[in-house]
Amino acid sequence: MTDTPVSGAEVAGGILLRTQGVTAPLGFRAAGIAAGIKASGKLDLALVFSEGPEYAAAGVFTRNQVKAAPVLWSQQVLGGGRLRAVILNSGGANACTGPGGFQDTHATAEELAKALSNWGTETGAGEIAVCSTGLIGDRLPMDKLLPAVTEIVREMGGGLSGGAEAAQAIMTTDTVPKQAAFHHPATWNMGGMAKGAGMLAPSLATMLVVLTTDAVATPEQLDLALRNATRLTFDRLDVDGSCSTNDTVLLLANGASAVAPSQAELDAAVLAMCDDLAAQLMADAEGVTKRVTVTVAGALSEEEALTGARAIARDSLVKCAFFGSDPNWGRVLAAVGIAPITLAPDRISVSFNGNPVCVNSTGAPGAREVDLSGPDIHVRVELGVGEGTATVRTTDLSYGYVEENSAYSS
Amino acid sequence: MTDTPVSGAEVAGGILLRTQGVTAPLGFRAAGIAAGIKASGKLDLALVFSEGPEYAAAGVFTRNQVKAAPVLWSQQVLGGGRLRAVILNSGGANACTGPGGFQDTHATAEELAKALSNWGTETGAGEIAVCSTGLIGDRLPMDKLLPAVTEIVREMGGGLSGGAEAAQAIMTTDTVPKQAAFHHPATWNMGGMAKGAGMLAPSLATMLVVLTTDAVATPEQLDLALRNATRLTFDRLDVDGSCSTNDTVLLLANGASAVAPSQAELDAAVLAMCDDLAAQLMADAEGVTKRVTVTVAGALSEEEALTGARAIARDSLVKCAFFGSDPNWGRVLAAVGIAPITLAPDRISVSFNGNPVCVNSTGAPGAREVDLSGPDIHVRVELGVGEGTATVRTTDLSYGYVEENSAYSS
Repeated sequence: MTDTPVSGAEVAGGILLRTQGVTAPLGFRAAGIAAGIKASGKLDLALVFSEGPEYAAAGVFTRNQVKAAPVLWSQQVLGGGRLRAVILNSGGANACTGPGGFQDTHATAEELAKALSNWGTETGAGEIAVCSTGLIGDRLPMDKLLPAVTEIVREMGGGLSGGAEAAQAIMTTDTVPKQAAFHHPATWNMGGMAKGAGMLAPSLATMLVVLTTDAVATPEQLDLALRNATRLTFDRLDVDGSCSTNDTVLLLANGASAVAPSQAELDAAVLAMCDDLAAQLMADAEGVTKRVTVTVAGALSEEEALTGARAIARDSLVKCAFFGSDPNWGRVLAAVGIAPITLAPDRISVSFNGNPVCVNSTGAPGAREVDLSGPDIHVRVELGVGEGTATVRTTDLSYGYVEENSAYSS
Repeated sequence: MTDTPVSGAEVAGGILLRTQGVTAPLGFRAAGIAAGIKASGKLDLALVFSEGPEYAAAGVFTRNQVKAAPVLWSQQVLGGGRLRAVILNSGGANACTGPGGFQDTHATAEELAKALSNWGTETGAGEIAVCSTGLIGDRLPMDKLLPAVTEIVREMGGGLSGGAEAAQAIMTTDTVPKQAAFHHPATWNMGGMAKGAGMLAPSLATMLVVLTTDAVATPEQLDLALRNATRLTFDRLDVDGSCSTNDTVLLLANGASAVAPSQAELDAAVLAMCDDLAAQLMADAEGVTKRVTVTVAGALSEEEALTGARAIARDSLVKCAFFGSDPNWGRVLAAVGIAPITLAPDRISVSFNGNPVCVNSTGAPGAREVDLSGPDIHVRVELGVGEGTATVRTTDLSYGYVEENSAYSS
């Protein structure tokens, strides 16, 4: 994880902005409308469309064995390494909906292919990815969704950039839309949007991310860049390595800039974008009152460091202590002590926001007085058995989290 | 896990009572006093003493790599398979206290050996187990503890059964003491006490259990019985298989009944006792409003069933849903879907309290209307890929849990 860039910051040889999204690159259009899937009447259908001339694409999907219908569909479509459009809905996950749910996804893609073709862009359903987010287990209201697909194409065709509306339309319990854009001085660009808010236990925190770029790149290049970036960012946002039934991260490249960055440049830009969107997701996590990063250093390997950091980041007692601004370092030791990694149990050191609280597995002077009342807590654990380091982003465990998650479906 | 026996129930060929504890068998004495370790002035020091004629013993300890000083001490002592006494304190875990903390444990055992010898029972420190529970990271107030060791021996010597006071003295955030006793018709008996209350994330939920019996048994027999019982009970209480720095379960047999039960009889009695104490621990877990059992059946093996049940039992979103009495079965599917076990993702069925809510991975009619407002929720998940079954006990995730755990050390 790199340090979180602020909007306008120079990163990866370019400029990162949070004021633009998926339509920042050349040749991408987007729209967001209210299809009536959400009872609230809020925006709930988003479209991202690539005008080409190329349609290279890559995707990373949930590792959950229970996969939503749109994930099964989009994985299949991505086999071709080519996407013209992504249609996303909030208000329903279309997960655990059986063969009927898969037919709904398929019908949505077919309907969009037809609407885009009518609009003048010959498109097949096999060039369209579908994403859904919301409650698991209910069928989508297709009587509302299918007419809305035609409407959103009309909306996209008529207007200017609809990137902001698209970012709004994929929100569930998110309180703010998440967008980012990256501009490389050699005149190629990248845009992105993300949603996801249940960060403390991401097994139902569907994360949807769409990245767009006008760079020239092959599907293989995109796949490399995307896998590398998600491994270091979204995979380390929180906790237990678990994924929802619907998690999807897509990257579309249309070559409209006619600039072909090197793999290293592409990697750096995708990493910077994913890192910034991950930071935005953490900051808006359900019920969060603290932004927490956990670094484990001195582990036998990066993998062991990551396992240790996850064990701490997912520990409910550690999270509750942070909610209470309590520098209870003993809970950090107890949490890392159960991780299946190599430890020297009497040589572990811990600091909170740079203040040593535990040295060689015993309390440091003043440890109980360290002030954790601010919104950011950085935990650093030094194992002293090797060179492996990894950082995980997480949050505290608050009343707000329990409140938000104890009355979701009913 | 057997069904939870009620007090007075016939189990394992005998009678189980909750009105007696460690002094129920012949030849055991106990006491509990206020040593001043707890600032509140409540009971905080307990003693369990075996009058013999035999002193066979076995112990099971935390798997946490970060082990408290008393665990390191008691593991060493148990190498000899022999115990005359157990001294237990609440008000401080004596964990992460370095070599000085270990010396404190050693000094406590030496002091008790001296006091017992002065009282007329020649005892060595190597026959004494030590247990501590409370906050990690602080040294114990030895100026209060050492004089209290002499006092508690005097207390034990003077009075009648002090089992109830001992069970009180080991409480931390427990709201009630936990005791049980088992009487076999062939006139041998077993007693026990337990403490532990942070059940939702047991990495700091120190569990201390002392079991006593007047049966004749070798250390090897006790070890077999204890490992078998803890595997099926305390190891399946909650969640993520994690242990605190201090978890200790001890079993002492003094042969005072002169009856030598068979291994099967001993196994059954120890299992019944551990099961009942585990049920008492769950019912008193921090902030609990629901007692939850999760059974996974039809897994490839018992081990895979257990992995699946733990994944569900530890999922924060599942726990929050139960706190809200929300029959959100989709979260159960998402949770089991990330378990590293063999699944047929479209053939999973779930019931809540016997009501089918999900059949073949899609919602059952009426699933959203299932009433979970009562205090007990039984989740049954049928995987349909084998014969393996396992059950885990857990609780909901409530405001009370967050409250209790967000201000512990400060």
